[in-house]
Amino acid sequence: MENERLDDLQNGYMLIQNPKQFCFGIDAVLLAWFARVKPGEKVLDMGTGTGIVPILLKARYPGGRFTGLEIQEESAALARRSVAYNSLEDDIVIQTGDIKRASEVFSPSSFDAVTTNPPYMIGSHGLVGENTAKTIARHETLCTLDDVISQAASVLVPKGRFYMVHRPFRLAEIMSTMVRYKLEPKRMRLVYPYVDKEPNLVLIEGMRGGNSRITVEKPLIVYEKPGVYTDEILEIYGRERQETAAREEET
Amino acid sequence: MENERLDDLQNGYMLIQNPKQFCFGIDAVLLAWFARVKPGEKVLDMGTGTGIVPILLKARYPGGRFTGLEIQEESAALARRSVAYNSLEDDIVIQTGDIKRASEVFSPSSFDAVTTNPPYMIGSHGLVGENTAKTIARHETLCTLDDVISQAASVLVPKGRFYMVHRPFRLAEIMSTMVRYKLEPKRMRLVYPYVDKEPNLVLIEGMRGGNSRITVEKPLIVYEKPGVYTDEILEIYGRERQETAAREEET
Repeated sequence: MENERLDDLQNGYMLIQNPKQFCFGIDAVLLAWFARVKPGEKVLDMGTGTGIVPILLKARYPGGRFTGLEIQEESAALARRSVAYNSLEDDIVIQTGDIKRASEVFSPSSFDAVTTNPPYMIGSHGLVGENTAKTIARHETLCTLDDVISQAASVLVPKGRFYMVHRPFRLAEIMSTMVRYKLEPKRMRLVYPYVDKEPNLVLIEGMRGGNSRITVEKPLIVYEKPGVYTDEILEIYGRERQETAAREEET
Repeated sequence: MENERLDDLQNGYMLIQNPKQFCFGIDAVLLAWFARVKPGEKVLDMGTGTGIVPILLKARYPGGRFTGLEIQEESAALARRSVAYNSLEDDIVIQTGDIKRASEVFSPSSFDAVTTNPPYMIGSHGLVGENTAKTIARHETLCTLDDVISQAASVLVPKGRFYMVHRPFRLAEIMSTMVRYKLEPKRMRLVYPYVDKEPNLVLIEGMRGGNSRITVEKPLIVYEKPGVYTDEILEIYGRERQETAAREEET
């Protein structure tokens, strides 16, 4: 279709994207790498967009069963076509629906893990608004952080795991909201563009009903110097993918 | 007195310590460096021990007026003697008293800033118990994190600042408790012993009644390689002090 392109994810799968709408960034790649899935587990990706996170997770954890929840019909349709293109219909289901109603769309306690790369910006802060798909993906116009966390807590089984990528400036709100919904923060990794710069992403794992003790992991540093990824990022992306990655990254 | 020694803080001041009881570590030095004090401000150090934090702050911010609150009479007496030794009686007051009753000992809204290096360990976890002064300084036997944060919130003026050093494993509890008492986390720095290791300290600044937005600063890395401090740590300690620092550091 017009404006669409087919990207090779370098893990055996392809993804259909429309650059006029929203393309995945390093956030989605790091989230899929940070999350852990055991064979047979049911995983929900809340706000799946074009389905990048379940497709990346499926490549890494072939034994998992994945569901992507997406409110935008156009994105959900793209995601379904990517799933079909890769013949993954048996393992990845794309469900059109609202994060705010996840516990009605699905049964309570029905997933072993939840992943999410939710909108980062509060309300209409910094909103430009000329593109609906991008706006919805980036701004909390349709759901808030509280919605994401409360709904994740309710669809997770006891001891189920929650994996989220977000911006560090909202860390206090993230942690206090997780604690409030008994999605106890258990593991965190901050992503620093350079070793001497402030972090611009945070990866966080919570456990429904976990005890209060978090492991803060070593820093994840993206660039050795301008244009040169660190070894750890190269390992995450696979060396062949670095040029694509740099191109895809949100600016 | 027996077991006591007089340490040169290399900032113009001396400190009396008793190694059989408790000697300050890198924690106190980093806390005093992380905190900011404006001329004329009143600052309370909760659980001041031998008075290291107010004495370091006084050297850095001569215009501040400092109070140290300490429950252990023996430590408070040492702190008072250090204050007198440095002729700082007009600027640093050591008050014997309980953190849990800080808002009764002092008036509500009576400090512009609070610093604290509280016990890190929950209850009697890992408790050895052969030394009362060390035990009280390290374990929450006499006051909990909730006590420290709630009391700090109550003695601070609106928009007053709270500075704490703690262990990262309690970060979720720290943040959710701060948010609960409206001591909003505004700035955080994680201290990593090495760039590729988990952090072992967290420095956090809160503001009474602040809005929900935190700046996570660049990593503070302590060692370049074993035995060699990074430039930033050398700057904090002053190059001459590094050997003392290494010796004092808690193991």
